[in-house]
Amino acid sequence: MGAYALKPDIRVIAPWREWDLDSRQKLLAYAERHGIPIEAKRAGSSPYSMDANLLHISYEGGDLEDPWQEPDETVWRWSVAPENAPDEPEIIELDFENGDACALNGVAMSPAQLLKALNETGGRHGIGRTDIVENRYVGMKSRGCYETPGGTILLRAHRAMESITLDRELAHMKDDLMPRYARMIYNGYWWSPERMSLQKLIDDSQATVNGRVRLKLYKGNVIVCGRKSETDSLFSQDVATFESDTGSYDQKDAEGFIKLNALRLRMRN
Amino acid sequence: MGAYALKPDIRVIAPWREWDLDSRQKLLAYAERHGIPIEAKRAGSSPYSMDANLLHISYEGGDLEDPWQEPDETVWRWSVAPENAPDEPEIIELDFENGDACALNGVAMSPAQLLKALNETGGRHGIGRTDIVENRYVGMKSRGCYETPGGTILLRAHRAMESITLDRELAHMKDDLMPRYARMIYNGYWWSPERMSLQKLIDDSQATVNGRVRLKLYKGNVIVCGRKSETDSLFSQDVATFESDTGSYDQKDAEGFIKLNALRLRMRN
Amino acid sequence: MGAYALKPDIRVIAPWREWDLDSRQKLLAYAERHGIPIEAKRAGSSPYSMDANLLHISYEGGDLEDPWQEPDETVWRWSVAPENAPDEPEIIELDFENGDACALNGVAMSPAQLLKALNETGGRHGIGRTDIVENRYVGMKSRGCYETPGGTILLRAHRAMESITLDRELAHMKDDLMPRYARMIYNGYWWSPERMSLQKLIDDSQATVNGRVRLKLYKGNVIVCGRKSETDSLFSQDVATFESDTGSYDQKDAEGFIKLNALRLRMRN
Amino acid sequence: MGAYALKPDIRVIAPWREWDLDSRQKLLAYAERHGIPIEAKRAGSSPYSMDANLLHISYEGGDLEDPWQEPDETVWRWSVAPENAPDEPEIIELDFENGDACALNGVAMSPAQLLKALNETGGRHGIGRTDIVENRYVGMKSRGCYETPGGTILLRAHRAMESITLDRELAHMKDDLMPRYARMIYNGYWWSPERMSLQKLIDDSQATVNGRVRLKLYKGNVIVCGRKSETDSLFSQDVATFESDTGSYDQKDAEGFIKLNALRLRMRN
Repeated sequence: MGAYALKPDIRVIAPWREWDLDSRQKLLAYAERHGIPIEAKRAGSSPYSMDANLLHISYEGGDLEDPWQEPDETVWRWSVAPENAPDEPEIIELDFENGDACALNGVAMSPAQLLKALNETGGRHGIGRTDIVENRYVGMKSRGCYETPGGTILLRAHRAMESITLDRELAHMKDDLMPRYARMIYNGYWWSPERMSLQKLIDDSQATVNGRVRLKLYKGNVIVCGRKSETDSLFSQDVATFESDTGSYDQKDAEGFIKLNALRLRMRN
Repeated sequence: MGAYALKPDIRVIAPWREWDLDSRQKLLAYAERHGIPIEAKRAGSSPYSMDANLLHISYEGGDLEDPWQEPDETVWRWSVAPENAPDEPEIIELDFENGDACALNGVAMSPAQLLKALNETGGRHGIGRTDIVENRYVGMKSRGCYETPGGTILLRAHRAMESITLDRELAHMKDDLMPRYARMIYNGYWWSPERMSLQKLIDDSQATVNGRVRLKLYKGNVIVCGRKSETDSLFSQDVATFESDTGSYDQKDAEGFIKLNALRLRMRN
Repeated sequence: MGAYALKPDIRVIAPWREWDLDSRQKLLAYAERHGIPIEAKRAGSSPYSMDANLLHISYEGGDLEDPWQEPDETVWRWSVAPENAPDEPEIIELDFENGDACALNGVAMSPAQLLKALNETGGRHGIGRTDIVENRYVGMKSRGCYETPGGTILLRAHRAMESITLDRELAHMKDDLMPRYARMIYNGYWWSPERMSLQKLIDDSQATVNGRVRLKLYKGNVIVCGRKSETDSLFSQDVATFESDTGSYDQKDAEGFIKLNALRLRMRN
Repeated sequence: MGAYALKPDIRVIAPWREWDLDSRQKLLAYAERHGIPIEAKRAGSSPYSMDANLLHISYEGGDLEDPWQEPDETVWRWSVAPENAPDEPEIIELDFENGDACALNGVAMSPAQLLKALNETGGRHGIGRTDIVENRYVGMKSRGCYETPGGTILLRAHRAMESITLDRELAHMKDDLMPRYARMIYNGYWWSPERMSLQKLIDDSQATVNGRVRLKLYKGNVIVCGRKSETDSLFSQDVATFESDTGSYDQKDAEGFIKLNALRLRMRN
């Protein structure tokens, strides 16, 4: 889809669909015949279908095609099982700038460096395994196992960062649109006009998402321990406090607020 | 809000707003004066603000009002820390009927019994702690720590159950509306007409959500190990298989599918 | 799409795609050869592509394929031009029950009778012509001219009926979902699970949509003149009045309402 | 709300709520006492509550408080009744640049000039009257009559312009968000972060909305007669044609497209 969007007259060759390489076995035989090395071949059976990039590695096919069957421990390549992760938690800190993670434990990194480092750290702590049945764009359900240690940490950290820097209604609007954004990307519409326009909204929302998040990594868990922003915190202890009413929030205002919000509910009876 | 919806002419008394009990300290003094016992008082400081029901217990106030400060281990009451949970995982199975969990390990239970059992089991495995900064309806951000062991397990299990029984587009529509549904409840609109009409959509979507989910509980993790449905599975190994093209899904169809979906992208250039 | 949903193993025959009848001219020749009468043939050119049912008639193709070109007056078959409609307005009244129009000028009618009657009345007054460029599901834009006299009147009347009987938030939720509902139907997903679940929400919302609407039809205009509901009006003159504050709405409540709604806006600065 | 957003510590004075000027009659007496002239006083009754700006004028109160009662012809100030509009239609052309109307009949105008000109032209043709029951933010329903001749013409023209220049999915996303955008503005949230971020999406979507629209104004009707764009038309006669299949759209692709879109519907049975 992306290729067509970028170069409308491109010719796409899909060997599985257009040639006769329409099964895993035929592809393996073709590779063997032409001396193409295949990683992770398994005796007596084809390897899982794997895709990998900086963000994730995925596994499909083989015995994973029974969604009642737990994936064998030998499937996973980027992470240890939570049971085999260290007994000691590790504390990390991530800095965000305009919604992008830019430093790990105070060390500035490029996005690629940072994701790579989080993949390693997260994988060591058993973080980021996902085992799902997903809905393919072409119409069928499919079982996939994923490892995204860095992505899992970033997602948790980013939302914690947003929790004190993003306005409530902006956050809600973003939440409402998030599944739609995810669908666009999952289905191949990265280079579509709708994704690009929606990106403008999201990028604008991130201007205030600046600060630091502290996380504890422990046997599969990513635990948020703290979040702060010197420049953009919308959290005000003075307003939020439960201790007294000397703060700038006037409890008396709540009465009119509740009564008018309830007006339409009261009029229905 | 609920009271006004159910009985429009009700008189709501809010001591904090209407009387002079407008601080934690005044409330404690009032309780002491009138012999009302207060659980979990802490020497030299007021207890956290706690709310509890079958689904959750929450903590706010005191030193939690600094969102950079990790909650002290003494805060939590329903769960152990993941570090203190058993070294052995526990496998459980949950059965669903019309989207509702109805049996734990094959034993039929009422919703209340089941949630209570999952709270105990989950809490024992360090599951369900959440530490967030939330957006109150009255306009300010507030830091809250929650324990929802049973709810955490149910959420994970329910989505796994839906993953093989819910149609893709129905699932997507439900995802798009989920944050809106959550807001209605968070803000007090359970008895509103919009929540009740939206419920009809959700209830209808759950008619096929029947089957069994197997989960592994381990030191804070809820890991989906399997899901199956004798009656309503939309997962078809025959259609989804990667192994060959003898199945009922015709790879050739993908060409026209992709080309027409790409048509509008190609015409923009 | 509907046929596949209702009978998964049905065989669909699409002559245009599968046989060699892949142009308007070939279809006309085929019809002539086999003695099939074609209505509205035009000398020297093929007729418009027309579809008609109780709700609408549509025209595409021919000189309409230039969207800068106004459709010739000879295109239209169900309505007169506004310029040729009577100089005297006509007042009609429509009754609604659970959101469905059920009577015209006090005479109970079946949905089909009512739509037929409104098509005639509306068409006589030049109502319901639409000339649009639409977005086909298969990816291209296409120019279509439509006549929907009855539908145009019903849409206007129904929204007027809702305006006094539908709760604000329910109305807003319905508005947010309306384009989605329309897309489902336009693209052929009437028998999809997402349409059927969404219908439950809509049907439930219509339980209170009961009453009468009065409309003036005049040279293309459908003008709402009045709406009332004996049983379900949420409009209360006592609450809405501008004349004094003796009503049940207390202006004082507005202060707290506005101040708390503004709180998050004030805290951003 | 806007004042609070722009200057958090501003002091808002609301005479109706805070002073004793809490009725129409008191306000009139106050004005008379202080020599403040009141336009449109009516003998024996207070004038309607009117607000006017470049975009609209609104009327509320008095006999309009009965939503079954048609507004008297004397209410309206900016437009003639359709019945009293000229018997001759008037054709106008509007040019758009990045979604904004920038010229009327080929004459470049500022937005304010253009809106003013359309208000006059539209009002002369009986265009832009609306009579609705609306949902106030403070919770009650209220009947309002509006005149927006220019706005009515612009809305119709803008959507016609978009119909050939806006990508389908971008248009659908915008449609889905439009009621939300309208609510933000209606409720006073123009200066909110959610409106400003959403604006980025909308502004980005308008980059291609360039071209010309031709409209016919006639006795209350705004009829789209043509739309074209030299630079950004997504309408392709070559692709859309019904006349033959020599175009760039291959009917054969539709088979795979339909079959894969129907796959999930077929698997439910």
